[in-house]
Amino acid sequence: MNTLIFALPGNEALAQALSQQTGFPAGSAEIRHFPDGETYVRLLTDVQQHRVLVLATLFQPDAQMMALYYLCRILRDSGAQEITLIAPYLAYMRQDKQFHPGEAVTSAYFAEWVSQFADRLITIDPHLHRRKSMSEIYRIPCTVLHAEEIIAEWVLKNVELPLLIGPDSESEQWVSAIANRMSIPYIVLEKTRLGDKNVEISVPDVSAYLQHTPVLMDDIISTARTMIQTHLHLQKAGLQPTVCIGVHGLFAGDALQALQDAGVGKIITCNTIPHATNAIDISPLIVKQL
Amino acid sequence: MNTLIFALPGNEALAQALSQQTGFPAGSAEIRHFPDGETYVRLLTDVQQHRVLVLATLFQPDAQMMALYYLCRILRDSGAQEITLIAPYLAYMRQDKQFHPGEAVTSAYFAEWVSQFADRLITIDPHLHRRKSMSEIYRIPCTVLHAEEIIAEWVLKNVELPLLIGPDSESEQWVSAIANRMSIPYIVLEKTRLGDKNVEISVPDVSAYLQHTPVLMDDIISTARTMIQTHLHLQKAGLQPTVCIGVHGLFAGDALQALQDAGVGKIITCNTIPHATNAIDISPLIVKQL
Repeated sequence: MNTLIFALPGNEALAQALSQQTGFPAGSAEIRHFPDGETYVRLLTDVQQHRVLVLATLFQPDAQMMALYYLCRILRDSGAQEITLIAPYLAYMRQDKQFHPGEAVTSAYFAEWVSQFADRLITIDPHLHRRKSMSEIYRIPCTVLHAEEIIAEWVLKNVELPLLIGPDSESEQWVSAIANRMSIPYIVLEKTRLGDKNVEISVPDVSAYLQHTPVLMDDIISTARTMIQTHLHLQKAGLQPTVCIGVHGLFAGDALQALQDAGVGKIITCNTIPHATNAIDISPLIVKQL
Repeated sequence: MNTLIFALPGNEALAQALSQQTGFPAGSAEIRHFPDGETYVRLLTDVQQHRVLVLATLFQPDAQMMALYYLCRILRDSGAQEITLIAPYLAYMRQDKQFHPGEAVTSAYFAEWVSQFADRLITIDPHLHRRKSMSEIYRIPCTVLHAEEIIAEWVLKNVELPLLIGPDSESEQWVSAIANRMSIPYIVLEKTRLGDKNVEISVPDVSAYLQHTPVLMDDIISTARTMIQTHLHLQKAGLQPTVCIGVHGLFAGDALQALQDAGVGKIITCNTIPHATNAIDISPLIVKQL
């Protein structure tokens, strides 16, 4: 069965990278909006008997979902045999329970809808906070990839004397695992919750690491407020400017400016969401699954 | 079974009108967007064992559909017994066939999705062009209301010496029907298609109506280009400035300005989509169905 790669608008660069690395040709679709805000989708490539990959990173999802839905529907109606949604960043993973009565658990409702029009899902480091597995909400096979290793490779190549930072005790396990694999030192900070919104961060003795560059990782950089707070504590402890790495750079509101104003050393993201800070290419991760 | 009225943001005025006329209380829901574009929905009223009406006019639908979907899902999961979607303007009715191969027939795909999360649909003058009935695409009971009569009442009250204009021969049947019911004169224009985009409009002898005000109606005012062209032909024939009436005022791009620049007499719409031109209240039409 031959494979074709389709991409929603905004995913062209990653689609091209996947096409080059796999040899799968790009399929063509016209996707645009009418002045009244309705979406128009036209398939321009014959997909009969083909497996299709649909690349759609789901940052700012609401503006994209109708296009994604219509594209998958017309692909199916035009004879596509298997529709794999590749969402390097997957939307609606954060509302994973009712924090307050009456809340729509959007992660479940969203997953249910997507499971109707896609046959398989590939994503990178989805925000699986309270859920153990994607199969709790998705009724289609999901492949979850982790950017940890390629981030570690990037750090080894690009940061001299890195010091890995675990932002809290929960992170100790994975931070120590990566640090040991990379043969670099790490420290773990301690968060003491003083109230609902008040968190105290304490930094252990770092006198041995004053020449090292602290490297702080998170799955999502959104408002970046915790990251900035942690960076400032590391600075106060006498460390070099922090290298901040996010798998998914959402940069809500003024997050990027705030990080820069706080004097962080570098801001680095994976190219799951196109952004000027993209420095780590996740396409090889996806290619291994195709 | 008691009834509650919910409204998506932007539908508050009509919701209040419906509530006042029916005595059905308004239900409350918090609907907002996170900085990353995701939608948050929280139901604040107990809906257990209630019939619920969800008022959502679907102009600029893509930005609203996730909120509508999540609201209907949490209403159902919270015990609502019947969910009636009231969409005074219904989206995605215009792509009702493949004009070109490969096009997503979005009206059908949209209807299929909506039919999953709503139990009943009430709408006003949907753009049923090539379809005879909503049941061709919707799998839920649909009530289609027509604004024709309340528009006619408005004309009788507000336009002195009206002359109803049928924009083309297809419109003759309904224009003559309204005109006869209102006991006012009408004329029907003739459109001759000269090419794909070239249409010639010819106006019959109107010498008897030079003191009359031409009244031009359409279901949707979108770009308004045909309406303006028709108005200019009526002007050339010596008629008074045209009163332009649309059931649904979408006013794509500069449509409103272009109508004003063309020197039309008045621009009037029904309140299916909130707009400064709203002058005809459709709430009594809906109330009769509740």
